[in-house]
Amino acid sequence: MVRYRDVGVDIDKADVFKKKVKFLIRRTFDKSVLTDIGLFGGLYSFPKSKYSQPILVSSIDGVGTKTIVARLMGRHEVIGYDVVSHGANDILAQGARPLFFLDYIGTGKLDNSVCLQLIQGMTRACREVGCSLIGGETAQMPDVYAQGEYDLVGCIIGIIEKKKVIDGSKIKPGDIVIGLESTGLHTNGYTLARKVLLKRYKIKEYVHSLKTSVGDALLRPHRSYTREILDLAKRVSIKGIAHITGGGLIDNIPRILPPDTGVVLEQGYWNVPAIFTLIENLGDVPKDDMYRTFNMGIGMVLIVSREDSKKALRYLKNAHIIGEVARGKGVEINA
Amino acid sequence: MVRYRDVGVDIDKADVFKKKVKFLIRRTFDKSVLTDIGLFGGLYSFPKSKYSQPILVSSIDGVGTKTIVARLMGRHEVIGYDVVSHGANDILAQGARPLFFLDYIGTGKLDNSVCLQLIQGMTRACREVGCSLIGGETAQMPDVYAQGEYDLVGCIIGIIEKKKVIDGSKIKPGDIVIGLESTGLHTNGYTLARKVLLKRYKIKEYVHSLKTSVGDALLRPHRSYTREILDLAKRVSIKGIAHITGGGLIDNIPRILPPDTGVVLEQGYWNVPAIFTLIENLGDVPKDDMYRTFNMGIGMVLIVSREDSKKALRYLKNAHIIGEVARGKGVEINA
Repeated sequence: MVRYRDVGVDIDKADVFKKKVKFLIRRTFDKSVLTDIGLFGGLYSFPKSKYSQPILVSSIDGVGTKTIVARLMGRHEVIGYDVVSHGANDILAQGARPLFFLDYIGTGKLDNSVCLQLIQGMTRACREVGCSLIGGETAQMPDVYAQGEYDLVGCIIGIIEKKKVIDGSKIKPGDIVIGLESTGLHTNGYTLARKVLLKRYKIKEYVHSLKTSVGDALLRPHRSYTREILDLAKRVSIKGIAHITGGGLIDNIPRILPPDTGVVLEQGYWNVPAIFTLIENLGDVPKDDMYRTFNMGIGMVLIVSREDSKKALRYLKNAHIIGEVARGKGVEINA
Repeated sequence: MVRYRDVGVDIDKADVFKKKVKFLIRRTFDKSVLTDIGLFGGLYSFPKSKYSQPILVSSIDGVGTKTIVARLMGRHEVIGYDVVSHGANDILAQGARPLFFLDYIGTGKLDNSVCLQLIQGMTRACREVGCSLIGGETAQMPDVYAQGEYDLVGCIIGIIEKKKVIDGSKIKPGDIVIGLESTGLHTNGYTLARKVLLKRYKIKEYVHSLKTSVGDALLRPHRSYTREILDLAKRVSIKGIAHITGGGLIDNIPRILPPDTGVVLEQGYWNVPAIFTLIENLGDVPKDDMYRTFNMGIGMVLIVSREDSKKALRYLKNAHIIGEVARGKGVEINA
């Protein structure tokens, strides 16, 4: 006799878990949320009266193999936090404000403690960026995921008035490139980082140049820029925003540039955090690969006119002018 | 020297893949889609003028370990199709019409052929249910996914006028339960089905009672009910809709029932397809587990008044009265 739990899928356990997380999730609800948890679809009342030509901006993504570092360290809250801030940063690149978020946890065998930590992190980040966690799914797929591993996927839906969409179209040579510091690797480059660092160090080993353990350095949260930049957008005309994710500065900045426009960055204008230098040196990783894989200390890039740049810097924390827009193509980085 | 592709993540390959799929994806766009592929967030112009109190209805989900059957058979298009029809059916349970969809493909190593098939399936289903594929992400996570496996996650956003939301609140004893036939397992119960069937049969083995191979029977698509039910909703007042997914008829129907209301189903009113009987017999699976794991031949349940039931049946294909609403709780199934 084969019962469903014998093959690794335990519906009762999933039910208990669902009840536990209801409390956390409800705390993220704004007054537009009509759904109670358990309906098939999450219901969100569209704030029609607040917008003249509303545009929905959405993004779906995971957090990469940072999940593996989380498992090695036994700390998963940050992964939940990251999937939300990653998504919120993505739609922020078009200037959008988050409305709601849905998550998917895929794993071989549901671990209530891990899932609770993930949801704690997601709900914390949702409250921080002002969005409601209105839907989610946990999928138990014993043969798809490697033993003990999981993937966390999040989809975020935001909104912006059509005439306020930031799309980079007004960017022109001479504009200023502002870089906002990252807090670490954020959620990109973990496959390479793990291969290089864990070949040399144990995960909990203290590394002098990092001033902490490898694991703790790798688990620094994905910084959320939502409140800061939404606030700035009310005061300064932001021409373009690039979220520095997979592909790094080199691939992400050109996504917002008009044709025949490039940027020249001056590497000396910001500090590359120790963790990147450590990976580069230990792994003998070519500079170009480093800049296409990691954020190298800059998690978000804003492009503003020269006139607006000083005002922008007054309102931003941990931000630097890192270069300027030029005729040409792509990203040139002066060492 | 460690280059990023040496550790299993090939950005150039990912870029080629992105170009190939642009063509397919653009074909799903309706005129509300403002985005071009490559922006950070997908942009969708909200159809504000068409709704007085618009409610956004959303759902996120995967397709379970049906992906493993797809790999064994080397046919992945159906998985793409399924993730969209699953999501569309989910929001249909509240009466919503799909607007747009975002997908996430997580895998150890990107296989262009597999991904193209997935996108072919998704775009075909998107066109069928009338929604635009406006965002997506492919994540290469070499150590999270088991060798050769992948997960496909989809998030769908739909819309409905507030006063037309179907929420089950008007259901009362005496109402009629209509079941719409499934085309197979849809996307639930694959872990159990694989364990039972593949212990006895080879994946491509012809099975007399199935009139096809095990693999082909398991890869039947997740039926999409969107057009049929949206059409019906214009003619008949549908009180409740339950999408029969994980948990089967037993767990999903109660999700839409008011307190102190249950349903009594008559098993003889519909045919349980051969694949379920085969799994039940081969695996000696208890009846209760079968009904909590599989859809047992009914993929979608509608609840309508007795007066409306005949009219509804005239408009529906492959639908049957399968029981009625009664005082009580939960689902009772008379053999």
